[in-house]
Amino acid sequence: MTDPLRPGATIGILGGGQLGRMLSVAAARLGFKTCIFEPQGDCPASHVSNFHYQADYSDTDALTAFAQACDVVTFEFENIPTDALDVIEAITPIHPNRKALATSQDRLLEKNFLTRIGLKTAPFSAVKTASDLQSAIDRIGTPAILKTRTLGYDGKGQARLHSDDDAEAALAAMNGAPAVLEGFIDFSHEISVIGTRAADGAISCFDPGENLHRNGILHSTTVPARLSPAQRTDAVLLTANILNALEYVGTMGVELFVTGSGLIVNEIAPRVHNSGHWTQAGCTIDQFEQHIRAIAGWPLGDGSRHSNVVMENLIGADIDRVPEIAKTNAALHLYGKADAKPGRKMGHTNTVTGPAK
Amino acid sequence: MTDPLRPGATIGILGGGQLGRMLSVAAARLGFKTCIFEPQGDCPASHVSNFHYQADYSDTDALTAFAQACDVVTFEFENIPTDALDVIEAITPIHPNRKALATSQDRLLEKNFLTRIGLKTAPFSAVKTASDLQSAIDRIGTPAILKTRTLGYDGKGQARLHSDDDAEAALAAMNGAPAVLEGFIDFSHEISVIGTRAADGAISCFDPGENLHRNGILHSTTVPARLSPAQRTDAVLLTANILNALEYVGTMGVELFVTGSGLIVNEIAPRVHNSGHWTQAGCTIDQFEQHIRAIAGWPLGDGSRHSNVVMENLIGADIDRVPEIAKTNAALHLYGKADAKPGRKMGHTNTVTGPAK
Repeated sequence: MTDPLRPGATIGILGGGQLGRMLSVAAARLGFKTCIFEPQGDCPASHVSNFHYQADYSDTDALTAFAQACDVVTFEFENIPTDALDVIEAITPIHPNRKALATSQDRLLEKNFLTRIGLKTAPFSAVKTASDLQSAIDRIGTPAILKTRTLGYDGKGQARLHSDDDAEAALAAMNGAPAVLEGFIDFSHEISVIGTRAADGAISCFDPGENLHRNGILHSTTVPARLSPAQRTDAVLLTANILNALEYVGTMGVELFVTGSGLIVNEIAPRVHNSGHWTQAGCTIDQFEQHIRAIAGWPLGDGSRHSNVVMENLIGADIDRVPEIAKTNAALHLYGKADAKPGRKMGHTNTVTGPAK
Repeated sequence: MTDPLRPGATIGILGGGQLGRMLSVAAARLGFKTCIFEPQGDCPASHVSNFHYQADYSDTDALTAFAQACDVVTFEFENIPTDALDVIEAITPIHPNRKALATSQDRLLEKNFLTRIGLKTAPFSAVKTASDLQSAIDRIGTPAILKTRTLGYDGKGQARLHSDDDAEAALAAMNGAPAVLEGFIDFSHEISVIGTRAADGAISCFDPGENLHRNGILHSTTVPARLSPAQRTDAVLLTANILNALEYVGTMGVELFVTGSGLIVNEIAPRVHNSGHWTQAGCTIDQFEQHIRAIAGWPLGDGSRHSNVVMENLIGADIDRVPEIAKTNAALHLYGKADAKPGRKMGHTNTVTGPAK
């Protein structure tokens, strides 16, 4: 992409969930039209977008028509079939780029990449067979966690090994998929940095947030995170390193463990991230608009933080608490999903807890 | 309306311009579906709404289908044909109510109403004929301004009288429409209060903003407005009086002149208001969401101001400055209008100038 997109141009989004929904609103705010590609009807993003291509990712005709309708294409999830991306990329640019997507789609590639650029990760080892797993356990020890290389999210595709005895069951849980054994990290808390890199290479990172998980799903993010000034600087600089190394254009989420011996990268997500939802209440320009600005070739906006915020997810039956939450000073964001299944992200709240400190 | 609307309910909006667009986004944020009624295709609100009924306000079938699809109906402009409202109201509730709409649609009714509840307005007199106008001039003096009772906005349907000699031309400019002669007010500046009244009668007003007009169109709103503490209190209390007297449900804009002898009401608008756009950057909950909360029977949100803000409209060719504005720390809001006609509101910017003081 050479010239910035003009208002009125169309931004395509692969995936019609809540991230696509909030990206679509951000794009509209800048005068862009939006086009969602999503197999499900009545999806959250379709409620606030100009166009919805409801088709499967294997439908080449639909993908072609979608790509032709869009001036740039982005995505809200990383597990997009490669063939679909090939069809689209032959017609219109995709941001973030394929390299970032390929790297983050595969835990092994991701960890190799992070190690190569000098960042710390949990000890890890590739596992295909029982013998691989035994060697990995011998090197890394237990407790450890076995994860599929691809397609895992929100704690799915994972098995914990408390001791060697769990090896067989853990491997069986992978269903034959290639996996990675990761050692446990002794960390005090988890933070994440949401960073954006513009098409001209400019980088802007939001202040790190502190994450709390429950049942493997993000429960809350609090800003400011508990960090020393040096840790805060480290967190932002290493995020910039990742963005630059991938020649990334767009917003990325980087999850970090805070340990006595520095920051350890847990994982990277090549997209706007649940742990960045607090930016809607804490900053003039939020993570969604930064992403749209970047992929449109625009300058990044003012992402400085004006307020302290606690973001909390509304999962499954939490949606029943909405009438009570509406009485508080929290800002509600509901995703327009009809069914509140257990574990399903239905919305979130942002509560401003005071001016930025 | 007795029970609050549940997320997933549908909110109907009459009018598909930028106010409808921003109302639609606010409604989606709370999990509502949105349905726009607007004769124009590709209208700003349709870009971010679930449904768009593209039909004329005289199309009873379309109005009926629209009303049947909606759990509550609201509007983004006050000059809605009465017959259309009759069709809708027989099927589904309209908020704000018809009384508020009728009062603000007609400058004479509005000024009589304001006077009746004890508020100050400019001196005024109803004018139909040349003889009415002469009597009005005799009483009010010149300079004065003759305005059509209905259908005027952004300086249209108005004629200034610098002296008696302008009477004939001014009356001719009304094209036979009933009019009101208004005396000039010696004011230091104009402010507006954006206030919201919930279905249970609770009221929340945003901090007053200071307005600057150019060529009869709002140019900028700055918060905080220049006001003494007593004036600030007066402004909020009189807005609450208006909301209560009209048994209003929703957000209203009240324009006030600041004079040496107190606040004088210029006009009221029974809808979200251009001078309230700053709330998007200055408050956790903005004027659009307060309106949606009110008409949905929800509690009002936290409208306290966390930042100082300057809002500036982008009118006509101002849209050409977008590439430069994108480099600043201003938050941009573009309305998705294809043609930048002179005088047309194309977007606005909100610039945070510091923490609230």
